[in-house]
Amino acid sequence: LLLYFLSGALTHPDPRQREALIKLEASMQMGGQIMLTDAEQRLNSVLMKKKQEELWRADFPPALHFFKAKTLIRTSPIFSVLQKMPKGGALHVHDFSMTDVEWLVKNVTYWPHCYICFTNNQSVRFLFSSQFPKTVLLCSPWVLLEDLRARLINVTDLDNSIKGNLTIFTTQDPNVVYPNQDVIWDRFEQSFLALLGLVTYAPVFREYYYRGLREFYLDNVMYLELRALLPEIYELDGSKHDIAWTLKTYRDVTRQFTAENPGFFGARIIYTVHRGVNLTVMTKAIEEAMELQRNFPDIMAGFDMVGREDSGKPLWYFREALSLPVQKGVTLPFYFHAGETDLEGTDVDQNMLDALLLNTSRVGHGFALPRHPLTKLLSRKRGVAVEVCPISNQVMKLVKDLRNHPAAMLMLEDHPLVISSDDPAMFGSSGLSYDFYEAFVGFGGIRSTLGTLKQLAINSIRYSSLTLEQQDKALALWQTQWDKFVSETV
Amino acid sequence: LLLYFLSGALTHPDPRQREALIKLEASMQMGGQIMLTDAEQRLNSVLMKKKQEELWRADFPPALHFFKAKTLIRTSPIFSVLQKMPKGGALHVHDFSMTDVEWLVKNVTYWPHCYICFTNNQSVRFLFSSQFPKTVLLCSPWVLLEDLRARLINVTDLDNSIKGNLTIFTTQDPNVVYPNQDVIWDRFEQSFLALLGLVTYAPVFREYYYRGLREFYLDNVMYLELRALLPEIYELDGSKHDIAWTLKTYRDVTRQFTAENPGFFGARIIYTVHRGVNLTVMTKAIEEAMELQRNFPDIMAGFDMVGREDSGKPLWYFREALSLPVQKGVTLPFYFHAGETDLEGTDVDQNMLDALLLNTSRVGHGFALPRHPLTKLLSRKRGVAVEVCPISNQVMKLVKDLRNHPAAMLMLEDHPLVISSDDPAMFGSSGLSYDFYEAFVGFGGIRSTLGTLKQLAINSIRYSSLTLEQQDKALALWQTQWDKFVSETV
Ligand SMILES: [Zn+2]
Ligand SMILES: [Zn+2]
Repeated sequence: LLLYFLSGALTHPDPRQREALIKLEASMQMGGQIMLTDAEQRLNSVLMKKKQEELWRADFPPALHFFKAKTLIRTSPIFSVLQKMPKGGALHVHDFSMTDVEWLVKNVTYWPHCYICFTNNQSVRFLFSSQFPKTVLLCSPWVLLEDLRARLINVTDLDNSIKGNLTIFTTQDPNVVYPNQDVIWDRFEQSFLALLGLVTYAPVFREYYYRGLREFYLDNVMYLELRALLPEIYELDGSKHDIAWTLKTYRDVTRQFTAENPGFFGARIIYTVHRGVNLTVMTKAIEEAMELQRNFPDIMAGFDMVGREDSGKPLWYFREALSLPVQKGVTLPFYFHAGETDLEGTDVDQNMLDALLLNTSRVGHGFALPRHPLTKLLSRKRGVAVEVCPISNQVMKLVKDLRNHPAAMLMLEDHPLVISSDDPAMFGSSGLSYDFYEAFVGFGGIRSTLGTLKQLAINSIRYSSLTLEQQDKALALWQTQWDKFVSETV
Repeated sequence: LLLYFLSGALTHPDPRQREALIKLEASMQMGGQIMLTDAEQRLNSVLMKKKQEELWRADFPPALHFFKAKTLIRTSPIFSVLQKMPKGGALHVHDFSMTDVEWLVKNVTYWPHCYICFTNNQSVRFLFSSQFPKTVLLCSPWVLLEDLRARLINVTDLDNSIKGNLTIFTTQDPNVVYPNQDVIWDRFEQSFLALLGLVTYAPVFREYYYRGLREFYLDNVMYLELRALLPEIYELDGSKHDIAWTLKTYRDVTRQFTAENPGFFGARIIYTVHRGVNLTVMTKAIEEAMELQRNFPDIMAGFDMVGREDSGKPLWYFREALSLPVQKGVTLPFYFHAGETDLEGTDVDQNMLDALLLNTSRVGHGFALPRHPLTKLLSRKRGVAVEVCPISNQVMKLVKDLRNHPAAMLMLEDHPLVISSDDPAMFGSSGLSYDFYEAFVGFGGIRSTLGTLKQLAINSIRYSSLTLEQQDKALALWQTQWDKFVSETV
């Protein structure tokens, strides 16, 4: 039909031909070829009707900044369906933004031996220590939080201020608080540093991760690939564990959680290094990653870099180090962040191509991909999925109105992609459902259906780092949950 | 190379392969395969350097609403080059928004026998009449402007107010004055009705068109395809000419202007009808259009519909009428407005597909095209060019920041397209250079070059309604002007 039409023979316009072309275009989109069961079709009708109503709202959430949209989304009937929906895996989440900070503020900072200091750029640092710790650079002398709270009449203010320092979420106008990308990246990094002293304390570390898994699982995510810095975790006496210990702890907690929750399939770790390091440090990190990959093949999924692309070194700068595994014949899959930028024509803008040249398994973000037709084609042909993180891209100021997210085009073309949440706790979000909402109601527009959602869930398993055999097992588990969800929701 | 790379053989990343892929992607964009002469390369370097400087500006014009950006653009060194540059043809311009209104206000409304009345929705109407005219619906009694001005101490205020009624341009915050698409379309139509009584008066009509041709010619546009309503033009005694007279007048004035200006190639008329009419009226209009096409084949280029797509009937509604020419074996080329919408999944959203099914020669706007992968493919394969009107799309509230115009992707894929200005006078713009600026500096981004601009000019002739032979003549004339421009500008 398409070829016939392309031949351009003009006939009296044929309604059946028109119908066929409209259907053909619809079938080209993500999930467009999925045959829905009767029950799924009924659920789809309900969802589409609700979406149409949502589209008519004056305060349409995807058009608003997520900080303002959050409470609106939470009351949306579509959101409650998306929460219940088995979403498969979350493939792009960072270690220390996976868990709600409420527990850190209201519980962890009340633990004994918790010290705080105040930096000269309005952030804070934390440390657990059995002894009074040495002052750190650019920070006030340490104060025992227990003592500080004892001296305060109202500890709620302090707790709120701590909470404000552990995320970039704000109830003020986000465009005033964060006028540009430089400011928000700086605050993002400060919040991360504030978190670090809490979450790298061994007892916190374990429980933080456990609670993170639970949050995702309760949000009906069955599998996680966590980008993790694998820092040296410390004990109260100041002693530090090595990086292998950190990875082993991830493995052990994952095993424990999976054993306790048979509906959860598991989690794997993508070891990440900050892109601000030099070539020597990167080379060492790659060597370390290869060793971890060899020693812990079950938990270790591969390697990536973190930090703002625009201000960091491009991937190509590290090509020597990143070629080491292939040169040595060692397997080390890459999951590079690339294209999280709106700077065109720079070296950074070539990161997506370079990621492909370095044989990346997926691309983190790929926000700039639609502006690179050749790179887009390559990623499609090679089946390299893009990890789209809608809320992250909006909060970090790459796109204002999520209806205009470039992934709209990718979804309409069925480009390999998954939806993920990047740093949910940092953005005042949680789990995966908020991002699914933005994808389904926002840039998915009126044309994305339950078939699209189903395909997104399937993609999240098929494009995961799991072996084919594991994927089949995970898909079977997901299918059971999906069928239950459909029959209970219709 | 591409196939080799697609085969996915992993090698140590090869800098030459990378270089080749980056070049290949650059060559895929519009104008990417044009070989620049030495002089052109020098001009390109200058332009790209200036563009880089422009991109660093805090008040980057394409990111601002055109009403605010206009004075910034006018002082941009890139704009002055674009003004001098021979841009080829303007293929999407409407009859009564082609000429600056200054002349209408400061000259025409001072002519004798000019009456004004004030509507109850804060607009005005005009009429030239030798006798005192009958009151029209929803308007105050007619006042002779000569009398009104004689009674006023300050006529400048009146003139400014008249001017404000003839365009939608404003120095106030456009997002406050025009909060949504409904409001701006309403004001747009009111301004059009205000203009109508002036420009359909025979002596004004001729001169308005002549002055419009001159404005475009002075802006280095050598050819025009004008969408024209072909209204009945009236004389002072109230008598009216028929529609053929209107078309003949366009032809005669065009011949005169072309004879006086050998650097100008000509103009052709696309007869337009408002999409608000019913099927009977449309059928008559098509019959009329076929007759005009037969009788005036040199000036008459084809047929189109005008008016807001979102509130009008979709093309498919008129399919019976629009199929008449093919049924009768008569040639009537179509140049349909389609896809000037951000409403997805509606009948209106299928206008682009329907335009193709009705064998349209070009698509006006095609703003929604990137969201229709199949329709996009069809328009590409059939060589149906999209007429991109950046400032119009921004002013009419389809896109805020012109860096995000969907044509960015089309340009990177070398989709057949031309740049045009739609209703320049209505937007406080003029000619074609402002829109070229937005395309080149805005959504063209850092990657569009002098080659892109050259291709846009060539496209405007190759996708015109001219015969191949005429196109070759026009291109030869353009090439002379282009070479002169390049040698004088370097
Ligand atoms: Zn990330
Ligand atoms: Zn138009």
